[in-house]
Amino acid sequence: MARAWHLMSRPQGLPTDENFALKELDLPPLAAGQVRVRNQWLSVDPYMRGRMNDVKSYVPPFQIDQPMEGGAVGEVVESTAEGFYPGDRVLHMGGWRDEAVLDARTVNKLPDLGAEPQAFLGNLGVTGATAYFGLLEVASAKPGDIVFVSAAAGAVGSAVVQIAKAKGMTVIGSAGGADKCDFVQSLGADQVVDYKAQPILKGLAAAAPEGIDVYFDNVGGDHLDAAFALARMRARFAICGMIEGYNKAEPAAFRFIMRVIAMRIRMQGFIVFDFQSRMDEFYREMGQLIATGQLKSQETVVDGIENMPDAFRGLFSGDNLGKMLVRL
Amino acid sequence: MARAWHLMSRPQGLPTDENFALKELDLPPLAAGQVRVRNQWLSVDPYMRGRMNDVKSYVPPFQIDQPMEGGAVGEVVESTAEGFYPGDRVLHMGGWRDEAVLDARTVNKLPDLGAEPQAFLGNLGVTGATAYFGLLEVASAKPGDIVFVSAAAGAVGSAVVQIAKAKGMTVIGSAGGADKCDFVQSLGADQVVDYKAQPILKGLAAAAPEGIDVYFDNVGGDHLDAAFALARMRARFAICGMIEGYNKAEPAAFRFIMRVIAMRIRMQGFIVFDFQSRMDEFYREMGQLIATGQLKSQETVVDGIENMPDAFRGLFSGDNLGKMLVRL
Repeated sequence: MARAWHLMSRPQGLPTDENFALKELDLPPLAAGQVRVRNQWLSVDPYMRGRMNDVKSYVPPFQIDQPMEGGAVGEVVESTAEGFYPGDRVLHMGGWRDEAVLDARTVNKLPDLGAEPQAFLGNLGVTGATAYFGLLEVASAKPGDIVFVSAAAGAVGSAVVQIAKAKGMTVIGSAGGADKCDFVQSLGADQVVDYKAQPILKGLAAAAPEGIDVYFDNVGGDHLDAAFALARMRARFAICGMIEGYNKAEPAAFRFIMRVIAMRIRMQGFIVFDFQSRMDEFYREMGQLIATGQLKSQETVVDGIENMPDAFRGLFSGDNLGKMLVRL
Repeated sequence: MARAWHLMSRPQGLPTDENFALKELDLPPLAAGQVRVRNQWLSVDPYMRGRMNDVKSYVPPFQIDQPMEGGAVGEVVESTAEGFYPGDRVLHMGGWRDEAVLDARTVNKLPDLGAEPQAFLGNLGVTGATAYFGLLEVASAKPGDIVFVSAAAGAVGSAVVQIAKAKGMTVIGSAGGADKCDFVQSLGADQVVDYKAQPILKGLAAAAPEGIDVYFDNVGGDHLDAAFALARMRARFAICGMIEGYNKAEPAAFRFIMRVIAMRIRMQGFIVFDFQSRMDEFYREMGQLIATGQLKSQETVVDGIENMPDAFRGLFSGDNLGKMLVRL
């Protein structure tokens, strides 16, 4: 019997155990053009918190007492779809569960790039594409730029650090605590700011005495305000996430937002799906960075579907170095 | 004897009489390549408040016990510069005074566009160029867009309203009080929100039930937050000014800034001087809008150099409809 995590009620702030239930799922026999997939790796991502609210956003909200969804990698065990055979490794959005029945049109076979399958939930998946397109397209980051990336020990942040270094940029990463800062340093960052040891503004000012050209924002709040404060002329901000605000109600205050004018700052929000049509370029470029060893997979693995809510919550308390994954 | 307003001390918040002094100016005989100009129109602009602080910005701060500067239109009364003759009408930055000695290289003869000379401090000057390039270039506003402009009764705002209407956009303007709102309506705005009669967010939501594509920001603070709240997909914000914050110390709080991500909002700060090289295009386009009656000069005139600090302070209490000018 398949099992799936259901959303039982909408969280206020950080989700609690009561918001979720792992329930048995009565999967139907395959209709024509479908595949049955046994999942091996499940992704937990901060953006999922938004889908737990009853708010229209770029993806529809999860429904109450229904299985949640998310990125997953698994193996086809049964197929009525042309071109899909048992044993195929596939990427799809039927996560938060151990087995999924899916229309084959929504399922992608893993390209043969010589990478581990779970990499397609990380550096070769949504995570890596977010880092790649956010840095190079949205923020127009160029060799020689001084790049500040927040949550640099996280899934997207750790990819940004490595891509930026591979492209000849100076990189300043922020992270919380000495262990994470050591990790960010090990990725090649030129400077690391521990935002738990000092106010981020003070730390960034010391790490970037000449200011910053690019800010890759995963955090919002004080981090974003510090970036406003330190931005150089024509700085570009790619706004990827604002995890600081996902679980709280108080609005963020900005003391330095007025510098947008004098410094001609360009701030641009984005979603990785905007770049869906350019995945070939992405696989080619990222495949090369992986082959040359310039981009390494950084993973924190939690075992067992039972522990998936804890893995998800861990994203907000900073339990992960790199990409947080659940292994079945 | 010439007279000039000097900055005597740096204001805290809104400037007071003690911050300024009107002092006699001992002007030297002309050196080679100079002109002596008798000023006829002086400009007061919100950005001057920034120059009264001791902060490096896109223009250097005013110096203590020195004459202030600003846009001015006047008549050449003496010249040692080639191509300049007594009687020439000129535009220059030697404002806040009744007479100025200037290097001719920093002085521009007024183009013959059939306009009143003071228009070169308004719709044909920095004010109009700010509206024109901010709306059409920075915000990439297109026919059919729903455009929200704050401080729509002000100098830049009233030009934005008219240019946007001339270009086939739907325009929502905000202003404070019934008289100003009537004025904005008379400029052709489709909807006007009185931000003194209700919270701007509530008013904007009612005026723009489908949301906004473009926000031309002169105000910052709650207005900017309301624009975040109502932005449609791929909305563009041109950040021209944040007058709400110029005289106060408390940071602005933003409840809706996170919508930058889901709506892919692009926010871009700018200074009109960035478009200096395109003034020919600007004169051509604006000259045509003026000739067809689609763009009318909107002026509030204060007489006498003695009243210039009051005129300047009036910008922050909203004393002006359209461009605030001092006539000598």
